[in-house]
Amino acid sequence: MIMSRSEASRSEAPASTGALVDRLLDGLPAEAVLTDPDVTASYAHDMASFCPAGTPAVVVLPRTVAQVQHVMRTATALRVPVVPQGARTGLSGAANATDGCIVLSLTRMDRILDIDPVDRIAVVEPGVVNAALSRAVAAHGLSYPPDPSSWEMCTIGGNIGTASGGLCCVKYGVTAEYVLGLDVVLADGRLMSTGRRTAKGVAGYDLTRLFVGSEGSLGIVVRAVLALKPKPPGQLVLAAEFASGAAACDAVCRIMAAGHVPSLLELMDRTTVRAVNDLARMGLPDSTEALLLAAFDTPDPAADLAAVGALCEAAGATQVVPAEDAAESELLLQARRLSLTALEAVKGVTMIDDVCVPRSRLAELLQGVERIAEEHHLTIGLVAHAGDGNTHPTVCFDPADPDESRRARASFDAIMALGLELGGTITGEHGVGVLKKDWLARELGPVGLQMQRAVKQVFDPLGILNPGKLF
Amino acid sequence: MIMSRSEASRSEAPASTGALVDRLLDGLPAEAVLTDPDVTASYAHDMASFCPAGTPAVVVLPRTVAQVQHVMRTATALRVPVVPQGARTGLSGAANATDGCIVLSLTRMDRILDIDPVDRIAVVEPGVVNAALSRAVAAHGLSYPPDPSSWEMCTIGGNIGTASGGLCCVKYGVTAEYVLGLDVVLADGRLMSTGRRTAKGVAGYDLTRLFVGSEGSLGIVVRAVLALKPKPPGQLVLAAEFASGAAACDAVCRIMAAGHVPSLLELMDRTTVRAVNDLARMGLPDSTEALLLAAFDTPDPAADLAAVGALCEAAGATQVVPAEDAAESELLLQARRLSLTALEAVKGVTMIDDVCVPRSRLAELLQGVERIAEEHHLTIGLVAHAGDGNTHPTVCFDPADPDESRRARASFDAIMALGLELGGTITGEHGVGVLKKDWLARELGPVGLQMQRAVKQVFDPLGILNPGKLF
Repeated sequence: MIMSRSEASRSEAPASTGALVDRLLDGLPAEAVLTDPDVTASYAHDMASFCPAGTPAVVVLPRTVAQVQHVMRTATALRVPVVPQGARTGLSGAANATDGCIVLSLTRMDRILDIDPVDRIAVVEPGVVNAALSRAVAAHGLSYPPDPSSWEMCTIGGNIGTASGGLCCVKYGVTAEYVLGLDVVLADGRLMSTGRRTAKGVAGYDLTRLFVGSEGSLGIVVRAVLALKPKPPGQLVLAAEFASGAAACDAVCRIMAAGHVPSLLELMDRTTVRAVNDLARMGLPDSTEALLLAAFDTPDPAADLAAVGALCEAAGATQVVPAEDAAESELLLQARRLSLTALEAVKGVTMIDDVCVPRSRLAELLQGVERIAEEHHLTIGLVAHAGDGNTHPTVCFDPADPDESRRARASFDAIMALGLELGGTITGEHGVGVLKKDWLARELGPVGLQMQRAVKQVFDPLGILNPGKLF
Repeated sequence: MIMSRSEASRSEAPASTGALVDRLLDGLPAEAVLTDPDVTASYAHDMASFCPAGTPAVVVLPRTVAQVQHVMRTATALRVPVVPQGARTGLSGAANATDGCIVLSLTRMDRILDIDPVDRIAVVEPGVVNAALSRAVAAHGLSYPPDPSSWEMCTIGGNIGTASGGLCCVKYGVTAEYVLGLDVVLADGRLMSTGRRTAKGVAGYDLTRLFVGSEGSLGIVVRAVLALKPKPPGQLVLAAEFASGAAACDAVCRIMAAGHVPSLLELMDRTTVRAVNDLARMGLPDSTEALLLAAFDTPDPAADLAAVGALCEAAGATQVVPAEDAAESELLLQARRLSLTALEAVKGVTMIDDVCVPRSRLAELLQGVERIAEEHHLTIGLVAHAGDGNTHPTVCFDPADPDESRRARASFDAIMALGLELGGTITGEHGVGVLKKDWLARELGPVGLQMQRAVKQVFDPLGILNPGKLF
């Protein structure tokens, strides 16, 4: 994250940008308006591969709702596109700049305004980092469950924009289920409140949920009321090795059909297991074709692990290793945490897909991805939030090799096609951004797409809010 | 529920209705088109008091998606309003007919299309009765948690239209959290699919949630993919008596602040307790000013009840009675289940409010309702889903007494004003319908109201879908 506080330097900007910056400075302090091209360039894109990014005209870093309103009024008056950003940890290019845009970084609006243990809510500004909120509520005996892998960096505003998931979703659900109410600055600068501070509420259309996952294309979230849960007991983890991916997927189905509620149920395919072995000498047997990790944060996790271990064995697990304490559990999770780093090490660059299928179709997706990897002569590792059927097939490629890059992109598309064919979605938790625009149209169909565009038109008639994203 | 199958009788209808009926019969069998005024009148309204209802021109009872599409194409062609209905158990007049409308009853589309224990989903038509679904999924070891009081009669389509709650929401959440995807017939007859069959998915705007709670004003839900949970263990119930409502509310706050997750946490005020005593001789002491019922469906509910019982005593409970088995638990819940019947017996008619406040403000709401009852010289009993802060102040009045009726309506409004003042919402789970239209505008404010109307315009440009409801 770049938090440069260099003074706004008007002379470096072209004429039209000069007028824009002048107007912005009418309602923002100079230190909140960045125009140095070397600095603004660092705000051009998020962490997605293969996503074009333009050059921002200016980066603004407001600290107040009134300042955000000023930015949007200015953008509306001058018809300048606005790209809202959190920590730019996204994986779909949804935070990528467009040429001449205002990058609206919400990272300085990072106050936790309220934590209420009786009402089990937190009220936060959008720039609060997920981990900062998690730690703050933990001090009150509470938890904010959504835990994307980037939780130490990503912001709640970004999580809301993407409707982020994470490892614990299989038990605790995704960001959308924790957003009770929002304050949103609309495209023209007006402030709108949606939702509630209460546990329940059905007063009018659920515009709160409409904003969750809208990737900054409908308005700027400036405050959120979030639901919290009591802090669960620590979890215990079990690792199970399988001689085939299909057997591991069968175990997933048996675990869920038996009514278990794991707090984590992750799968790594053989490519990922070997990459992790190569990187970190984890000592996983080379015969391992799939590794399943299950965790329980129930009152008696050892009993749950024993039951799930038996189901894994019935599905053909070659080895089942239940942790006996928190330290052992953390050790077992290390392999999973290292997965993406290990896959990146294979070729230098990865392209991470995010296909989610009904969990009953998980085995077919795994087999299909193996076939696609062979057909495209590529290494594709697959990690999955298996309990949710949410897979991250990760294509390893060398970006300096044009043919391999082309094949990487083609395999990525083939995986999305397979996901749809299996009754799934092109994105379980990463969002559409610019990466999956063409595929969104295929998933929604013409009527759905038309209605989504019409909804966008209501909130953003001038088309200035994060243009070119989603559709 | 009225399921008359009288033949459509065109001669009884006026000329314009005749043309409408002719068009409808082009795509519907005669037995699905009701025009006998005695029959259609019985479809005029739901269970809300004080809500005007018009006279339908015709009632249609389609069995297929294609038939619903035909109805909507006809309505669009002839500019006839359409009022969708489930079992008409609603409490806000949202299903009330308007003059000359087509009542579109979905009760015959009542098939459960799929129950999948691995994916933990059910696919249903809108006319499936909540209890029928609950029983069907229970046979697979699963549960569909949302449990409105009318669950033996109300339909899933109606639950989706209202975003219904129930007793178990404090642990399991409301209908909205269980709707993964929808098939919707739009105002012009086109079919749109939203959402997914998968556990997670973020492909585009969340139009699924936009339809949940939209009271039939945006489209006709013809199919729903619902999330299911594993069937929990049976719950054990505790009853605690308090010498003041404030002490009972204090116990609620202590229970929630301590991190407990009850499967039910209900409160009855002294008026309700006495009404139940009068009706059913439950033997509750007349000194009881408030009764709290807590339940747990955890692995060790007796331990949870003991902990919660201690918190109740610390808050001043005069008696704490934990059930020892399912039969005792059911007995304790009887008082709660009889509450509305008992309050209806006081004066013959009740008007049930549905204000939800942050649970930390519950005591203030209770005191305020007592004050409002005194000021308006009325009997107002209060039952509450206390764990959610969702209260049902129930105004008892004699509709034959105009002055008392006027005071009943005035007290109802005073309660909503108090709810908003305490940071709450005018409706936690019953919806807006025609009953709370004026109040919705107050809760949303001008910007929110304008955006909601603009969204309505996108989906229903001719204003034919359940007109006059919500706003």
